[in-house]
Amino acid sequence: MRVDQAVNIEDLHRMAKRRLPKVAFDFIEGGLEDERRLDRNTAAFHKHHLLPRYLVDVSKRDQSATIFGQNFSSPFGISPTGSAGLFRRGADMMLAEAAREANIPYIMSGASNDTIEDAARVAPKNAWYQLYAARDGKISDDLIKRTADAGLSTLVLTVDVPVHSKRERNTRNGFANIRGNWLQAALSLKPSLLAEAMTHPGWVIEYIRHGGTPALGNWLPYLANGASAEETVKFNRSMVPAHAQTWHDLERYRRLFPRNLVVKGIMDPRDAVRAADIGCDGVIVSCVSGRSSAFSAGRPSTARWRADCPG
Amino acid sequence: MRVDQAVNIEDLHRMAKRRLPKVAFDFIEGGLEDERRLDRNTAAFHKHHLLPRYLVDVSKRDQSATIFGQNFSSPFGISPTGSAGLFRRGADMMLAEAAREANIPYIMSGASNDTIEDAARVAPKNAWYQLYAARDGKISDDLIKRTADAGLSTLVLTVDVPVHSKRERNTRNGFANIRGNWLQAALSLKPSLLAEAMTHPGWVIEYIRHGGTPALGNWLPYLANGASAEETVKFNRSMVPAHAQTWHDLERYRRLFPRNLVVKGIMDPRDAVRAADIGCDGVIVSCVSGRSSAFSAGRPSTARWRADCPG
Amino acid sequence: MRVDQAVNIEDLHRMAKRRLPKVAFDFIEGGLEDERRLDRNTAAFHKHHLLPRYLVDVSKRDQSATIFGQNFSSPFGISPTGSAGLFRRGADMMLAEAAREANIPYIMSGASNDTIEDAARVAPKNAWYQLYAARDGKISDDLIKRTADAGLSTLVLTVDVPVHSKRERNTRNGFANIRGNWLQAALSLKPSLLAEAMTHPGWVIEYIRHGGTPALGNWLPYLANGASAEETVKFNRSMVPAHAQTWHDLERYRRLFPRNLVVKGIMDPRDAVRAADIGCDGVIVSCVSGRSSAFSAGRPSTARWRADCPG
Amino acid sequence: MRVDQAVNIEDLHRMAKRRLPKVAFDFIEGGLEDERRLDRNTAAFHKHHLLPRYLVDVSKRDQSATIFGQNFSSPFGISPTGSAGLFRRGADMMLAEAAREANIPYIMSGASNDTIEDAARVAPKNAWYQLYAARDGKISDDLIKRTADAGLSTLVLTVDVPVHSKRERNTRNGFANIRGNWLQAALSLKPSLLAEAMTHPGWVIEYIRHGGTPALGNWLPYLANGASAEETVKFNRSMVPAHAQTWHDLERYRRLFPRNLVVKGIMDPRDAVRAADIGCDGVIVSCVSGRSSAFSAGRPSTARWRADCPG
Repeated sequence: MRVDQAVNIEDLHRMAKRRLPKVAFDFIEGGLEDERRLDRNTAAFHKHHLLPRYLVDVSKRDQSATIFGQNFSSPFGISPTGSAGLFRRGADMMLAEAAREANIPYIMSGASNDTIEDAARVAPKNAWYQLYAARDGKISDDLIKRTADAGLSTLVLTVDVPVHSKRERNTRNGFANIRGNWLQAALSLKPSLLAEAMTHPGWVIEYIRHGGTPALGNWLPYLANGASAEETVKFNRSMVPAHAQTWHDLERYRRLFPRNLVVKGIMDPRDAVRAADIGCDGVIVSCVSGRSSAFSAGRPSTARWRADCPG
Repeated sequence: MRVDQAVNIEDLHRMAKRRLPKVAFDFIEGGLEDERRLDRNTAAFHKHHLLPRYLVDVSKRDQSATIFGQNFSSPFGISPTGSAGLFRRGADMMLAEAAREANIPYIMSGASNDTIEDAARVAPKNAWYQLYAARDGKISDDLIKRTADAGLSTLVLTVDVPVHSKRERNTRNGFANIRGNWLQAALSLKPSLLAEAMTHPGWVIEYIRHGGTPALGNWLPYLANGASAEETVKFNRSMVPAHAQTWHDLERYRRLFPRNLVVKGIMDPRDAVRAADIGCDGVIVSCVSGRSSAFSAGRPSTARWRADCPG
Repeated sequence: MRVDQAVNIEDLHRMAKRRLPKVAFDFIEGGLEDERRLDRNTAAFHKHHLLPRYLVDVSKRDQSATIFGQNFSSPFGISPTGSAGLFRRGADMMLAEAAREANIPYIMSGASNDTIEDAARVAPKNAWYQLYAARDGKISDDLIKRTADAGLSTLVLTVDVPVHSKRERNTRNGFANIRGNWLQAALSLKPSLLAEAMTHPGWVIEYIRHGGTPALGNWLPYLANGASAEETVKFNRSMVPAHAQTWHDLERYRRLFPRNLVVKGIMDPRDAVRAADIGCDGVIVSCVSGRSSAFSAGRPSTARWRADCPG
Repeated sequence: MRVDQAVNIEDLHRMAKRRLPKVAFDFIEGGLEDERRLDRNTAAFHKHHLLPRYLVDVSKRDQSATIFGQNFSSPFGISPTGSAGLFRRGADMMLAEAAREANIPYIMSGASNDTIEDAARVAPKNAWYQLYAARDGKISDDLIKRTADAGLSTLVLTVDVPVHSKRERNTRNGFANIRGNWLQAALSLKPSLLAEAMTHPGWVIEYIRHGGTPALGNWLPYLANGASAEETVKFNRSMVPAHAQTWHDLERYRRLFPRNLVVKGIMDPRDAVRAADIGCDGVIVSCVSGRSSAFSAGRPSTARWRADCPG
């Protein structure tokens, strides 16, 4: 099946699964621990049904929405997707371009391969940046400053990964985290993975041709000149997640970032209220729950769109 | 299995599936998008149970019901089924005859192959007509006038298909809509469909013998003399659905049709009330929901029977 | 597996299935129409859980219960099972004996092969009789009189089969009702049934050796002398169910039967109250529902035990 | 798969299943009667979800809990597991050591192979003892006295097995209870079990090398000198469960044991209150329910942790 023959998202899912070696696709598809929550997420969405009203003129249909005072063509956007460049070389900028064309928000992942500055260049009005705070506060502050300097309208702080999660598929595949020079490591550890990967030559050849795992572009400035891709990943792993990050840090980010500040991953309504009191502009409820607890305390506009899963 | 050996509806369903090529049966059996709603519909019906009362004389059992002042032998009728003549040559009139024999309502589909006038001739007391309004209001008005002139008691306006639906099975089978000279087109596009169709020779031979797809009889008057079946379908596709149809149109239909006017597909109770206020005589809740919201505002009788699925 | 190796009821179920030809076992196992209610019945029972209290002396455990002033060893009894003698020659009296040994109620089916008088002889204190009223009221009255004369303590009127039910397995197996000379008929109609039956020689040989289908013993007095088994079944089919039976008939039965009168199959609580008002002693809620609506209006004791399915 | 490759508990479960003959593993894995409750237990746990609060410093994570005034590293402990020494020689002391290393409670089973005194030696601060009361009250009292003399902090009385349960897998495997010289008995009865066992030679060889089934160490003092393992099991079966044990016995245990007394298996909240009134320090809700009804009536601390299944 070719991309233009795909009838729905599930078709694209199957095509991606066919192209990628299991060791790579498991990283995208796998959930935490017993993966029970994946089905629960899907079920949560299916609980909601639309109740249509008829006999209304729908010859022109418009699903545009105003988010933070800006008009977008849809109330949905592209959620942050970590390591996308590993699965498709240049994926971050492809997403940015697609969001620009569709006029929807694109949240660049804090684990992107391309940079904040790239995103601002390709999709100046649509790119937002997802901050995974670093243990070294100076790096967090610099990432915020770069987001502001690049002119991005919105900074999204992810708070729901305060410790590394347990992804059992990754552990079984022989590596704890897919970034770094993981493929070689995984394949050398498990001959069965190597054999399986050889049945997906398209991706493997492209991967090797491009010199293996790409660097985390946003993190290069914080290493010595000439750092390898593997070193950026290693350094990132030593800095993220910022276990000790608290509400006081959020207050500092609020002072540092002059435009829209969104908190992603909040689950408890009390935390949403507290974020509003600090002056945040919105929250994004991640797919660990199907409930929306977006708020608009004292603000004219609200981010109500839901984020997709991995991020 | 022969028809007279069928023990239940599911037997008939299996027999139809065996007779028809997949490309045709998918049109009947398939739902929208991920088809999740098909199971939901079935589940909705299974939520309701009858609570019997015993020690009552049931030696004569009578399930007759008065609908719009007319006595029918059952509170159920035959819902509109589009393109029935494609699957069985002459199906529309078979349904009309069956309804007449059983003394139940028969709603001729707005996408029937036979005509309003045929229905009035075969089942003058049992036939109703389903209006899919046309983008050209003059055609809609003429269809209403013909229904009135033919003496049908009831006009049923379908409102829940304001845009074309996404039937993924049809897309996969290589055509967006099954009407028109679709079979040839589909078979020439996909050799696998042709091979499958050849295993259902009974239907294929009958289909070819009758000269392929039948015309949409009700639409022939709006084309030039000698229009082909394919041209009626093409023209119908250019006229239906009437995206811009609103409550004002319904008010006009109400003025034009002198007898019972029913609105089919309404989901929101507020819309049912509005239809009553306009002077409609009933609503039919389509199977996208299992709830009945029939009303009888200021009217002595009410259409309470539920419609089957495709329509 | 031998009977004494059975660990639970499900084992016995499997053993019976192995012994009986499909054409016979389907009669026992099959439900009505789409058989959806069988699972619903099971699920209804599983909704109820026991909440144990501990630190109580259970060295002597006693589940005896007083029903209609009589002490039984258990609050459960044997529900009426029609045509049991067909599946196992002499089954009615085996059940009566088992109930006597266990000191629990045994309700002889209205479609038993043995007679009320047999039951009174074998299990005088444990046998009850299930009345399927006849269209000819004199027969019903005589069955009631015989139950009274035989000294049975309790008459059970079944009210929830006012018309014949639609058992689709039976229809598929080529006969509408399993009684009568059905086996020969079924086997001659469907060679596949004959072939299947031949794989269960134990039952088939016993069936033939005993001269085929046994008579409905309780109905023999109402036919001419020397009536065949098949004729009893045919006559019974012409007399049962009594479509026109009403509450007035129940009042008459109440006057005719001097001891306990129980109504089986009532579903609506209002009907239970009405039965109490008439002077009935209890109701049995059949397994079409998992709810017990037993009552004891103005009576010192109540039949609270639930009946098994076929009856 | 080796133990250190196990990613989750389910991996360990599969490994154990592979190592043990079916006749042995069924004893661990099987539930009562139709085993329906096993799934219900699991489902009960899955009803509960954690609602996280974010932006809190989690660089040091501490799940320690104070139970009965003592600090443990976790609010979870090791529930009593009967006959563990049968499946792995010396398992009781392995569990005691593991609990000591992890600083969590270890409840030695009343059907352990090692002794109270062993537990006190290996894990003096972490070992608790589960009392299955004996029909001979003097034995119960002595077991309580030994628990007190050995210095264990907590005695756990199990009350929810007042009669032997019906474990159908065990019955099918040819023995009513796995203890005693069961393996030989089972294997000699069922050749199919012997054949299956031979496919798990590791466990079988170890079992034979150690001289078969181990004794129930805590019960040796109550038999004549030189009693065999099989005799301890037989004697235990004659003494346990104590069918006639009542609340009065619990009051006596309360007077006899000077430290924490916990009742395990209580289901009804009224029983929990009664245990509190008697002066018990806590209850453990067994996995037959997913609800916690722990109490702390007039006591500063409460055992709130849930027990695993077999016990």
